[in-house]
Amino acid sequence: MSTALPTTPDSGSPEALTVMGAGLVGSLLSLFLARRGYSVDVYERRADMRQSGTVEGRSINLALSDRGWRALEEVGIGDQIRQVAIPMYRRVMHDVHGNLSYQPYGKDSQAIYSVSRAGLNRTLLSLAEGDARIRLHFNQQCVGLDTRTRKLELRDTTTGEEQHTSFRHLFGTDGAFSAVRSALQKTERYNYSQSYLEYGYKELNIEPGPAGEWLLEKNALHIWPRGQYMMIALPNLDGSFNCTLYFPYEGPHSFASLQTPAQVQDFFQQVFPDVIPLMPELTDEYFRNPTSSLVTIRCFPWAFGDDVLLLGDASHAIVPFYGQGMNAGFEDCTVLNQLLERLGDDWSAVFAEFQQQRKPNADAIADLAVYNFEEMRDRVGDPRFLLQKKIESKIAAQYPDQWSPLYSQVTFSHTPYADAWQNGQLQERIMQRLMTHIESEADYDRPEVQDLVQQEMAQRG
Amino acid sequence: MSTALPTTPDSGSPEALTVMGAGLVGSLLSLFLARRGYSVDVYERRADMRQSGTVEGRSINLALSDRGWRALEEVGIGDQIRQVAIPMYRRVMHDVHGNLSYQPYGKDSQAIYSVSRAGLNRTLLSLAEGDARIRLHFNQQCVGLDTRTRKLELRDTTTGEEQHTSFRHLFGTDGAFSAVRSALQKTERYNYSQSYLEYGYKELNIEPGPAGEWLLEKNALHIWPRGQYMMIALPNLDGSFNCTLYFPYEGPHSFASLQTPAQVQDFFQQVFPDVIPLMPELTDEYFRNPTSSLVTIRCFPWAFGDDVLLLGDASHAIVPFYGQGMNAGFEDCTVLNQLLERLGDDWSAVFAEFQQQRKPNADAIADLAVYNFEEMRDRVGDPRFLLQKKIESKIAAQYPDQWSPLYSQVTFSHTPYADAWQNGQLQERIMQRLMTHIESEADYDRPEVQDLVQQEMAQRG
Repeated sequence: MSTALPTTPDSGSPEALTVMGAGLVGSLLSLFLARRGYSVDVYERRADMRQSGTVEGRSINLALSDRGWRALEEVGIGDQIRQVAIPMYRRVMHDVHGNLSYQPYGKDSQAIYSVSRAGLNRTLLSLAEGDARIRLHFNQQCVGLDTRTRKLELRDTTTGEEQHTSFRHLFGTDGAFSAVRSALQKTERYNYSQSYLEYGYKELNIEPGPAGEWLLEKNALHIWPRGQYMMIALPNLDGSFNCTLYFPYEGPHSFASLQTPAQVQDFFQQVFPDVIPLMPELTDEYFRNPTSSLVTIRCFPWAFGDDVLLLGDASHAIVPFYGQGMNAGFEDCTVLNQLLERLGDDWSAVFAEFQQQRKPNADAIADLAVYNFEEMRDRVGDPRFLLQKKIESKIAAQYPDQWSPLYSQVTFSHTPYADAWQNGQLQERIMQRLMTHIESEADYDRPEVQDLVQQEMAQRG
Repeated sequence: MSTALPTTPDSGSPEALTVMGAGLVGSLLSLFLARRGYSVDVYERRADMRQSGTVEGRSINLALSDRGWRALEEVGIGDQIRQVAIPMYRRVMHDVHGNLSYQPYGKDSQAIYSVSRAGLNRTLLSLAEGDARIRLHFNQQCVGLDTRTRKLELRDTTTGEEQHTSFRHLFGTDGAFSAVRSALQKTERYNYSQSYLEYGYKELNIEPGPAGEWLLEKNALHIWPRGQYMMIALPNLDGSFNCTLYFPYEGPHSFASLQTPAQVQDFFQQVFPDVIPLMPELTDEYFRNPTSSLVTIRCFPWAFGDDVLLLGDASHAIVPFYGQGMNAGFEDCTVLNQLLERLGDDWSAVFAEFQQQRKPNADAIADLAVYNFEEMRDRVGDPRFLLQKKIESKIAAQYPDQWSPLYSQVTFSHTPYADAWQNGQLQERIMQRLMTHIESEADYDRPEVQDLVQQEMAQRG
């Protein structure tokens, strides 16, 4: 069933590049590469999502932030996406009685943006299709990869026919369960880990109001923090919210413990009472929608000579709690583009420097994402935590050159993730010391507290 | 090529157990299980090593210590193995000029024992063969495993014929690259990591003297610590020593940098001059013997219901620098045996408790093994480090109930590895504080130092 080389004429020439995977990162990467003058063949296992309505079990919306925006600006579609993105300026916490509390994400105009995963991907694909240097090949599953001979084995998922094609430089952007990475994993001394949380997630839906209005505050990310578990909701353009329940697989309150519609209804009534009226389809959706797992994947190397490079989830899949999975993948594209700018087509050097530069940052955001789960499901429900955040905002306002909260560094800056994480840990230790002197927001202005803050700042230099 | 069920009559009955892998841990485990009255089928990919002379690329000798001895005593072959084991009472360090220094492993009679891997494995296999409840099946490679239907697919490596056999309880003792674990890795949410050191190892040989005598001190483990790399040697019964060079794959001094016999000879002359006269075959062996890699494998869970349990390297392969790989695997057998004693054949409970109890200990010895590499290749060459070890021995002698050096806890005790590691880190911090007051061995007896030691002990309680 294997036929030879039906590749396009210029495959094999030094400028022809191959991208496996046309998800968010793969389609954006192909645009970056084409804009640099390269001819790009993009293979994608799934059908063209612009024609098929279905999107395989992935989240419906995503939080786009500064690192992602930068990459979109660079390929010239920032404005286009901004028109369909909903800014979320703050966290709104819902307690078990439906009482609300608030935590701004950053300064006044700073927001993270709810965007439709499928919508964004479709836009990127259409843009790629409009570029003469890019050829998109759908329904092409990578079933084999020979790194020595640089041959990619593809199966047409509609006909079952297999073909092999040569590549000179292959970019693996085929996601957390990457087939390209699987081939690298078979090379000598490959470092690899997959680590699952003991939590799964399930998507639920809050319908729009009768006039298509949003039934919760629109420009916010909603959180129902419950200690060992939580639910969140992000707004959609049509007035609905996409909710995600993050819940243990096993235990007293868990997916395992809710087996019947009555149990689900009772449980939600008890712990999320304010959403019950907003979710008329709750129990149907609960049992219809899949429970998905939460994995962190780390590997190294990402590059195999100048032949293969992994980007995005293929090399660093992370849990979603910092809203940085897509943003990190998009930043991969920005960084690769910068290296190509600096090093030209010395692909060996580009690949080597890319993995050296990005690996520590990928490890940092992977750790941060797990860390932020605890913050979201537990600490944001604690008034003392919210007070600390308020005090920290005051410090950041007073000392803008010396202090930026960790969340802001990750979300609203281009500081490498590893540096942000290190700064953030330092600042957390300072906050711990200060908070022993602070009982209320007003305490911040007390002279002795101001002295302490000034001392800490002087020590930071 | 698949034939049905050529299993022994009582497979499928509750008491029939299946062991995949007849290496050190598998063969010992089958003895433990048979002694408890179970009927055991043992399948092994390789030929019967008692008939074939070759042993696949593994170390020639191993260091057996207290955890291993306990397991051997329990199956009644402690004395038999002791007759062919060579006690090593101390480390002998060789500097670049051939000068020696010494570090005892423990108290006077305490030693680790050099034993032949193949010899020990053959002894265990013969013992297993002599037990009517154990059936050994060689040349049977596990090529598939269905955890749902409890079917094991085996290929006869001599005929190529495949068969499948049912199991009720399967023990995966098939080593670091376990086929049984591969099947578990395909189950939902499986945690797995493989992490390689950037070092490889190569085995070399020191021949016996003309009269079959040992040309280095016999009852010692020899180390040539060289900072970024090292060589070690363990004695064999025939007067030879088995040497292992642990060396970076890449870099200025590395396997990559030594490409010709002249380069090897020059390098050894320069950094290991005292072994040159003892290794007449050096360059031949260097290029003939393979370079092997050093991997740490972690995974979880180890158990799949009451159907499958991984033990030994299959669940926790570690690097060899603490001499604990085999000992940890043998301790797995001891612990499993204790659980069977306590819980009877409630296999679900036994498997669940086994993995819960052993996993933190396996993680601890994995960390310790990597940590000890640095000690062996670098710190044992430092007089200040050796002084600290001497002072620590004095403390242990003076406060035997309160202090046992980390190495002794790991090697000469049955303290769980995780507890040993934690105690060891605590003690190391105390040693760091004390050593700022100590310049020589005699300083230990100074009243102010004795006061400090006493204070530290009082604080430990």
